[in-house]
Amino acid sequence: MAGTNRSQEVKTGGPRIILVEPQLGQNIGASARAMLNCGMTEMALVNPREIWPNERAVAMAAGATQVLDAATLHDTVDTAVGDLERVYAATARPRDMILRTLTARDAAAEIRAAMDQGVKTGILFGPERSGLTNDHLTHIDTVISIPLNPAYASLNLAQAVLLVGYELAFADFDQAGRAAFIEDTPPPSSKAELDAFILRLESELETRGYFPNEALRGSMARSLRTIFQRGRYTTPELQTLHGIVSTLINPRDRGKP
Amino acid sequence: MAGTNRSQEVKTGGPRIILVEPQLGQNIGASARAMLNCGMTEMALVNPREIWPNERAVAMAAGATQVLDAATLHDTVDTAVGDLERVYAATARPRDMILRTLTARDAAAEIRAAMDQGVKTGILFGPERSGLTNDHLTHIDTVISIPLNPAYASLNLAQAVLLVGYELAFADFDQAGRAAFIEDTPPPSSKAELDAFILRLESELETRGYFPNEALRGSMARSLRTIFQRGRYTTPELQTLHGIVSTLINPRDRGKP
Repeated sequence: MAGTNRSQEVKTGGPRIILVEPQLGQNIGASARAMLNCGMTEMALVNPREIWPNERAVAMAAGATQVLDAATLHDTVDTAVGDLERVYAATARPRDMILRTLTARDAAAEIRAAMDQGVKTGILFGPERSGLTNDHLTHIDTVISIPLNPAYASLNLAQAVLLVGYELAFADFDQAGRAAFIEDTPPPSSKAELDAFILRLESELETRGYFPNEALRGSMARSLRTIFQRGRYTTPELQTLHGIVSTLINPRDRGKP
Repeated sequence: MAGTNRSQEVKTGGPRIILVEPQLGQNIGASARAMLNCGMTEMALVNPREIWPNERAVAMAAGATQVLDAATLHDTVDTAVGDLERVYAATARPRDMILRTLTARDAAAEIRAAMDQGVKTGILFGPERSGLTNDHLTHIDTVISIPLNPAYASLNLAQAVLLVGYELAFADFDQAGRAAFIEDTPPPSSKAELDAFILRLESELETRGYFPNEALRGSMARSLRTIFQRGRYTTPELQTLHGIVSTLINPRDRGKP
C-alpha cells in the first residue's frame, strides 16, 4: 500500500540472500516478497525445517513466486556460499567472537560497490528464533547491524530481509549522485579456496596435537576461522599461506641463504 | 532475530503514527511492533473496520501492547491530526494532486529536525488495500515516498510503518555520529606486537629455506607483511598465530586426539 517512487530503476539480481535453517514456509514466502520489493531475486535455503518446495511459502509469496522458483537448496552453509567472494550476516553481534561490523546502511554501500565491480556477495539470515550460531558466523566477513530501539529490537525474518534490502535498493539511488567508489584492490579468492586452506591448516594442526581435547576444539577451530576469514586474501595470497604452512612443516633443502 | 546495536539510544515518542481505516486487527498489532522497534509509541486509529480494542491486535503486538494501550481512537482524520503542526502521508504519489514529495530518508531528517524544535508531527498510513484517498490527502503537507522496486512495490501496512520508522530511528543515530560502532570493536594489537609476530615468522621461514634467494626475498617478505597487516588482529589472536607457528614447527606430544 505504501508510497513508492516509480521514476527510478532498481537493479535486480544479487546479493544472494541465504536463509539458514528457516523454520516456517510462510516466513520464506514473506522473505521472497521482501526481496522482490527491493529488487533482489537470488535466494538460497540452507536446511529448511519444512519440506521444500513448500505450499505455505508459495501462498505467502503472492506475486514473488519467481524468487521461490529460482531458490537453491543446500544442506550446509558451506555449499550455499562456496562460490561467493564476500559474505555478510544480518545478526546480533556475537559476544564472544571478534567480527567486523557495519550498519545496514554502510554495508549496503559496500555491497553495491563490490557488486558493481563484479564481486559475488551474499548475506546470511538465521533461523527465526535462535539466530545464527557461532559456527555459521565462521563463514562470514562482516556482521550487518540494524540500528533499532535497543529495548525492543526483535524483527521477524522477512522484516530483517526488508530493511537490509531497502538499504541496498536505496544505495542504487544514492549512487547516482555520487562518484563511483573505486577500490583499487584485486578481488579476494572464492570462499571455497579459503575454506580449503582453513581445513588444511586445521588438519595439519590436529595431526600435531594443537587441540588439547575435544571440548576446546570447537572454540579453537572457530578462532582460527575468524582470524583467516578476516584477511580477504587473494588467490595468490592463499597460495603464499599454503607455502608458509608447507615450509614450517617440511623445511626445504635450500637451507640458510 | 536481526542484529541491533545496543550501545545507542533511540528516542521514544513521536511522530504520531495515524492508521486510517485499518482493515485487520493483526495489522494494527504488527504496526505497533514496528513502531516500538523504531522507538515510536504514539498511535492514532481513524475508524478501524474491526471493533476496538481488538484481541487479534493484542495477540500480534507481542511485547508492544503498551503502544496499543495508549492508542487514541478517532472518527475522522480531522480529529486525529487536529493538534498537530505538520502532517505527512506514506502513500503512492497521487496522480491528480500536486503535493510536495520527499523520500522516506529526506522526510525522516526533516521530521527529526522539526521535532527537535518542538513541532508536533504525524504520519498518515492508509487502509491495507485501497490506500489513502484524495480526501485524506487534503490534510497533509508532504507525501513520503519509499523507493522500492517499481515492478513490485506493494508493502503491507506494518512493513511501510517499519521502513518509515527505521529511517526516523536511523536519523537519530546519524546525528549522534557513528563512533560508537567503532568503539564497540575490540582494539587491534599494537603495531609492535604485530611486527614481532611477522619478524618471528620471517625468521622461522628463513631458517627453513622459504626464501630461495636474496633477489626474491624482498618481494616475498613484503607479501607476508601485506597478508598479516590486513587482519587487524587483537593481541589474543596474535598469540593464536604464534601458537599455530609453534605447533607446525614442533608438534606437541598430545598426538592425535
